[in-house]
Amino acid sequence: MAEALPAVLASPAARIVIIGPGLMGGSVAKALRTVAGFAGRIHVVIKSDGEGRAVQKATYAERLPGQKSRKSKLVSACFSQLGPAVDGADLVLVATPPQTIPEIFQALIEQLPPQTTVTEIASVKGEIAVLGKALFGQRYVGSHPLVGSEQQGFHGAKATLFRAARCVLTPTGKGDDQTCVFLRRFWSALGCEILEMSPEEHDARLAKTSHLPHLLAYAYMAFLGQSDPAALQFLGGGGLRDFSRIAASDPALWREILQENRRHLHADLSRFRAVLDNLDHALMEEDPSILQGILVQGQAARAQFQFPPLLKS
Amino acid sequence: MAEALPAVLASPAARIVIIGPGLMGGSVAKALRTVAGFAGRIHVVIKSDGEGRAVQKATYAERLPGQKSRKSKLVSACFSQLGPAVDGADLVLVATPPQTIPEIFQALIEQLPPQTTVTEIASVKGEIAVLGKALFGQRYVGSHPLVGSEQQGFHGAKATLFRAARCVLTPTGKGDDQTCVFLRRFWSALGCEILEMSPEEHDARLAKTSHLPHLLAYAYMAFLGQSDPAALQFLGGGGLRDFSRIAASDPALWREILQENRRHLHADLSRFRAVLDNLDHALMEEDPSILQGILVQGQAARAQFQFPPLLKS
Repeated sequence: MAEALPAVLASPAARIVIIGPGLMGGSVAKALRTVAGFAGRIHVVIKSDGEGRAVQKATYAERLPGQKSRKSKLVSACFSQLGPAVDGADLVLVATPPQTIPEIFQALIEQLPPQTTVTEIASVKGEIAVLGKALFGQRYVGSHPLVGSEQQGFHGAKATLFRAARCVLTPTGKGDDQTCVFLRRFWSALGCEILEMSPEEHDARLAKTSHLPHLLAYAYMAFLGQSDPAALQFLGGGGLRDFSRIAASDPALWREILQENRRHLHADLSRFRAVLDNLDHALMEEDPSILQGILVQGQAARAQFQFPPLLKS
Repeated sequence: MAEALPAVLASPAARIVIIGPGLMGGSVAKALRTVAGFAGRIHVVIKSDGEGRAVQKATYAERLPGQKSRKSKLVSACFSQLGPAVDGADLVLVATPPQTIPEIFQALIEQLPPQTTVTEIASVKGEIAVLGKALFGQRYVGSHPLVGSEQQGFHGAKATLFRAARCVLTPTGKGDDQTCVFLRRFWSALGCEILEMSPEEHDARLAKTSHLPHLLAYAYMAFLGQSDPAALQFLGGGGLRDFSRIAASDPALWREILQENRRHLHADLSRFRAVLDNLDHALMEEDPSILQGILVQGQAARAQFQFPPLLKS
């Protein structure tokens, strides 16, 4: 069951600031509006180009279902500068691409009210977690809702994105327990199941469960692209469609994630290649039991994983 | 648009024999019963154990929606021997695991009426196509509906499995044009879009679009299985779920497919590993443009693929 929102966020005076309301940040805004008891303000901070215009339009056009009053808008106010946006903020959520976060953190620290909690949703914590802790101390804990999509931008945002999803929190234990409790209740209210681990554990584990599959899907599709794709393009069934879906993700975003986590990824890649070498050797063996053994291992490992259910959108 | 059934199959005297009515063969039976104008007999040939019992039960219990007469059964008759099953057959469809097909072909040739068309739905053609041509001559052309599922057995069979799917036919041009036209109309009537290529081209292309992704998905899951899965098992989001779905497929079946196509697969694996090596090097470079270039290639290649739509089941 979802936990209730932290008391401070259940007040009409609550102020949540989303920096970078794209697919993820936009979904947080939409999901928040469906949480019973949330009647606070949602501020978004945007760049004034492209995506920004779409959000600004949404700010003024998008109303909650069945409501017409001015107060029922999805987004309470839209800013292009941090100062006025974060004034009086209870929670600042940074939802921009990972490599922009350090600069935003540096700008934030100059403007942040003393009571504000800070989190971000980067897929790799690494330097971001170190910097967050250094700048914001116990008011910062990282978040990572495991709900990526190959889609981009606010137009893909959905109120249901976090339902039955998992969200990793990355406390360090250095006095950030209260922040962790706060964020646990925040994400739980949006529908997430919460897992806690250190930023280092997060990066090591996500390298295996998310970053390596993305790397392999991109590598596989790059291989297909070098293999006469015109002759192959009608041969994609459901297996290929699903296996390669994540290779449709934004290359610029994933370049940042993969590079940021390259120390773990490089080590995992060499372990993966050892399995691939064994499989290649087994393929050429006359004894089929070796090949079968590796396939059985793979199938058995997958059966151990518990995936979130597919939800209707 | 679907083509009409071949005239001979549109007759009430039509007789279609499905050897091995599991997920695929069972779905052919169910789909056939939804084809306007099909009023023929469907014979299934089963082994008398396990799966066989399920099908026998279905034979007597499963009736078409809204019908109660004896003639409205899904399957007209259930055999455990080839001879009586194929007596008077217009079409024999072999839907058993690839490595059982040569033996079935050898048994079939002794019993087959002279007018019967023969096809099979193996995922690798190789020796099967050579043997089929040698035994049945121009009456044989291979089929491969691109509709695999990680599920197994008759209980997973669905009448809609072939809707909007692709089906590869593998004619050799050696007098089998009429057989190809016959099978084109058969699969088209079930809902498939038809592609034709030689058995050799089929195996070379499917190695890239289907067999290599399966091999990589199994290898990746075997890698995860060696990497403390207990610590990882709650970290699977939608990306991991979809990327690894095909690794839930039957290892015995896929061991046969991969081994049967190992010559192409081994060559493709070494090309794939060259891409992976480049990606690994790019990961460690300071210049992000090399890594980004490979990811962009992968994303662009995927955008060239046209996948069948997701259908509601």
